[in-house]
Amino acid sequence: MAMETGLIFHPYMRPGRTAKQTFEWGVQSSIAADKAGFTSMMISEHASQIWENIPNPELIMAAAALHTNTIKFAPMAHLLPHQHPTKLAMTIGWLSQILEGRYFLGIGAGAYPAASYMHGIRGEAQDTERLNDMVRESLFIMEKIWRREPFFHEGKYWNAGFPEEEEAVTEEDEQHKLADYSPWGGFPEIAVTGFSKNSPSMRLAGERNFKPVSIFSGLDALKRHWEIYSEANIKAGFTPDRQRHAVSHTIFVGDTDAEAKREVMEGPIGYCFNRYLIPIWRRFGMMDGFAKDAGIDPAKADLEFLVDKVFIVGSPDTVVEKINELFEKCGGWGTLQIESHDYYDDPSPWFHSLELAAKEVAPRISLPNRASA
Amino acid sequence: MAMETGLIFHPYMRPGRTAKQTFEWGVQSSIAADKAGFTSMMISEHASQIWENIPNPELIMAAAALHTNTIKFAPMAHLLPHQHPTKLAMTIGWLSQILEGRYFLGIGAGAYPAASYMHGIRGEAQDTERLNDMVRESLFIMEKIWRREPFFHEGKYWNAGFPEEEEAVTEEDEQHKLADYSPWGGFPEIAVTGFSKNSPSMRLAGERNFKPVSIFSGLDALKRHWEIYSEANIKAGFTPDRQRHAVSHTIFVGDTDAEAKREVMEGPIGYCFNRYLIPIWRRFGMMDGFAKDAGIDPAKADLEFLVDKVFIVGSPDTVVEKINELFEKCGGWGTLQIESHDYYDDPSPWFHSLELAAKEVAPRISLPNRASA
Repeated sequence: MAMETGLIFHPYMRPGRTAKQTFEWGVQSSIAADKAGFTSMMISEHASQIWENIPNPELIMAAAALHTNTIKFAPMAHLLPHQHPTKLAMTIGWLSQILEGRYFLGIGAGAYPAASYMHGIRGEAQDTERLNDMVRESLFIMEKIWRREPFFHEGKYWNAGFPEEEEAVTEEDEQHKLADYSPWGGFPEIAVTGFSKNSPSMRLAGERNFKPVSIFSGLDALKRHWEIYSEANIKAGFTPDRQRHAVSHTIFVGDTDAEAKREVMEGPIGYCFNRYLIPIWRRFGMMDGFAKDAGIDPAKADLEFLVDKVFIVGSPDTVVEKINELFEKCGGWGTLQIESHDYYDDPSPWFHSLELAAKEVAPRISLPNRASA
Repeated sequence: MAMETGLIFHPYMRPGRTAKQTFEWGVQSSIAADKAGFTSMMISEHASQIWENIPNPELIMAAAALHTNTIKFAPMAHLLPHQHPTKLAMTIGWLSQILEGRYFLGIGAGAYPAASYMHGIRGEAQDTERLNDMVRESLFIMEKIWRREPFFHEGKYWNAGFPEEEEAVTEEDEQHKLADYSPWGGFPEIAVTGFSKNSPSMRLAGERNFKPVSIFSGLDALKRHWEIYSEANIKAGFTPDRQRHAVSHTIFVGDTDAEAKREVMEGPIGYCFNRYLIPIWRRFGMMDGFAKDAGIDPAKADLEFLVDKVFIVGSPDTVVEKINELFEKCGGWGTLQIESHDYYDDPSPWFHSLELAAKEVAPRISLPNRASA
């Protein structure tokens, strides 16, 4: 199997975009990615960040559902501590039914303190340990709801239940019947994203056989993600499959190397990195891995360094070469999840890049060995 | 101002319809109603009932947002005890921004015990008093979230807050900026539905100046709704406006009386009443008001009785006459909210009825006196 292409939509819209523009851009992007042959589109959920201005990824998926054919959608991620598990379990189940299975479920604990605070989680309650405990309880409840067997759970964070179906009053009577909002096929595939080098999410993914998604933050971290995942996965009795591993990265494919570099430096991607992502990457120490790979001081890592040494930018030939080089060093992955940017004003260079990525790049990437650890 | 027409979508889909069919029918109906000149579409939210199989009205609104022009959408109702107020406040705010104001907000406490149970509310916790207390706290939190001023609330049912915006690290740095998910125009109009004769929702609507929506359950109840609402509204210092009052009812307009009656008796509406609504109306005592209006025994109220004496079914002339008769007796209302039914297999008679209602009926209905109590 060739490498697959996916889109990851945070969406990095510049401040000042209206909600309608962001929403439209999400729907337009899903249609373009579906047409180009992308296999997945992940959409993130954020309550606080102005550059990541989607609080409800499910609304874009719903708007795209009837206008796309093969692409799968995933919230990446629904933040489980922020919502009642029953309500969320039904949203997930119903949407996966509407999409007739073109759905998988990213889950997370929430990364931004401001977003946790809004949902009533502050101070010590923001400890990773406790947030993960909330994630576990939420997942426990959601799985019970999806099973549709009677239960009542008085939890640490939430109460929830599933009732017995009442007896019918007459033979024709259908007022007692319970609607079925369990996911298409019973349970959805669950995915988690890892980011830091010793990512606890990768261990969780291995243990529970979830789909691992790495946010690219340097070669060391990427290799370590696969090690942590596959070790935990084997220990839990599963066979790790690199085809399930998705890696999100900044990619731009142009007709020539020079054109691609200029577009990234001067266009929406460069603008976003200068205004938002470079500051936030510095804050979360994400520059360190890239600087280490290149042997430079992290403080000197600027946009041009990223374009030349970190992002994968160039003509189709160059991009194939760069990805193959990465595959050799880390063992490869199944899906390249391309980070989306704000090409709302003129989508053509962006949609052209997506087309090239899906049609000229991905089919030429050597496959990882499916069962290798 | 002439009477306005709205659609209310529960959606009364027969069991066996897939989620995708229900969803498609919702989107198709919104487009048809928008084209016909309907001013509003209310969509309900139910976790339990197989005939009312929409757990997330916001997903249909999102899918319809880019395909409709003037119609306003409202969840009728978001059930506040079932979800975290911050999460819901953001969904509402963001969707109302996407719809650029074509939005108002129905709120409720949840009517079905099974649905409350699923969301962790059982036994005494299902008392109306306590559910309404949850509604009040939820609304209190949502209004604070929409205001976007710093607070932290440790509540009876939920904790929630809004953080201070952090200082920028550099002048260009935008990573600290908070996204704005407050509703279009600041606050949405809020609506509540009343149903029983001495509806506490109508009192609440009056006190808080919410939009009152009556589910038609007989003339006495309808008159009483307006009395309760307007009395409370005046007491709270407002001027009651009948134009804001919406009444949901079963309406079918055909080219002739005979055609309309046959369509309702033999088509999807009759099927739904026999299988679902007549049993449930008996269970909740909703037949009593209708039987009293007609002077018959409630046990004898069957489908044909409803079609002849309760529903408003007939040619445009007949329907105008029947509504004017009701207006004379109760003082009239601003929007006729037509109950939607399952015409998924062949929408044409239904969309024809909607067209006639909006174009041949509504403009001919005498206006209520705007400021009268």
